[in-house]
Amino acid sequence: MSVYDKLTALGISLLPVTPSAAMFVPFVRTGNVIFVSGHIARQDGQPWVGQLGADISTAQGQRAARGIAIELLGALHTATSDLNTITRIVKLLVLVNSAPTFTEPHLVANGASELLNEVFGVHGPHARSAIGVAQLPLGACVEIELIAEVA
Amino acid sequence: MSVYDKLTALGISLLPVTPSAAMFVPFVRTGNVIFVSGHIARQDGQPWVGQLGADISTAQGQRAARGIAIELLGALHTATSDLNTITRIVKLLVLVNSAPTFTEPHLVANGASELLNEVFGVHGPHARSAIGVAQLPLGACVEIELIAEVA
Amino acid sequence: MSVYDKLTALGISLLPVTPSAAMFVPFVRTGNVIFVSGHIARQDGQPWVGQLGADISTAQGQRAARGIAIELLGALHTATSDLNTITRIVKLLVLVNSAPTFTEPHLVANGASELLNEVFGVHGPHARSAIGVAQLPLGACVEIELIAEVA
Repeated sequence: MSVYDKLTALGISLLPVTPSAAMFVPFVRTGNVIFVSGHIARQDGQPWVGQLGADISTAQGQRAARGIAIELLGALHTATSDLNTITRIVKLLVLVNSAPTFTEPHLVANGASELLNEVFGVHGPHARSAIGVAQLPLGACVEIELIAEVA
Repeated sequence: MSVYDKLTALGISLLPVTPSAAMFVPFVRTGNVIFVSGHIARQDGQPWVGQLGADISTAQGQRAARGIAIELLGALHTATSDLNTITRIVKLLVLVNSAPTFTEPHLVANGASELLNEVFGVHGPHARSAIGVAQLPLGACVEIELIAEVA
Repeated sequence: MSVYDKLTALGISLLPVTPSAAMFVPFVRTGNVIFVSGHIARQDGQPWVGQLGADISTAQGQRAARGIAIELLGALHTATSDLNTITRIVKLLVLVNSAPTFTEPHLVANGASELLNEVFGVHGPHARSAIGVAQLPLGACVEIELIAEVA
């Protein structure tokens, strides 16, 4: 079953990657490895602002992480032209905007990991680090960067 | 002198990596590079909870980091079946659960770096970043992820 | 135009990388990829201490990030002997010592990205993550690690 069929079955549409006005690019490929820039959580196209342990619940954080995973898939689609050529999701770094008392960044991260496992099947299981950080760009509640391997 | 002889001389036993119920895996290999997931500090099998600059001293943090390095060695052993095939410890990312005033994450990180240098000899010297973060999974005091090169 | 000509045109001199007494090394190369250790901001050779959102402005943070980029260039020069052999700046991880309210780590990061783009031209555009962290080694205001590809 193709990655795109799985996305369709999940009701997920990939958004086009808009060329950034920023001083960096959404991804860089070196050899068979693609490094995808940290993507922040968005809601209705705007940064999803807030902090876990304060005004964002773990369940909301998981939805935010799942949304970022969809954006990362969009970047990988642009990078590869065909997500089926991805042979492995290698690693996620999941950065959770955390109040000093919030100790569940790994549960937030599961929102992204679950989707990637579902979409990529045997190519999905990845290494991961999840951490609670003091703040994120534009006050976003979650940011995730990703490394993938292509054929 | 084999890596295992060095571990024995140091009185270190590697623990078996227990298959994780989690949504990620302890390591992923791509080409000659192994990315090991962030591992948190443990004491008697439980998360070693606390914060540097608050209830954990720098010396305790160094012991926590050393303990994580042993867990990372366990993951690398599982990944390679033979630690002697590791040609280089490439990089550590050392995440220290830090009160706002704690400015010694690099000293905490030395607890891991020292052991890796001791065990791997000329293959041990690695790049590294050490940072103070707001929180970590389960309230752990330190988390470390690692990149290694294999033959 | 050579990378060194561009540096000269910008009035930038690379400092020699002093062999570190530390338990890690400034960079490690594996295959065609160089991982450069996290470098902290310095001013007059001393750690540039402070926190964004507290006693360091975004503009100061950008200058700090630019200064780190110059140090990273020094490390890459030592690693390659010739910066012109660098085929791509792959990724930056930009760690900004942030008060809980500071939401512009990406603007701070631009201080490094802009210089790298200027110096490396078509080889400069890189993936990036920028995050706000609780503290950094020696109280530095910014720390940056870098991945580069060589021919």
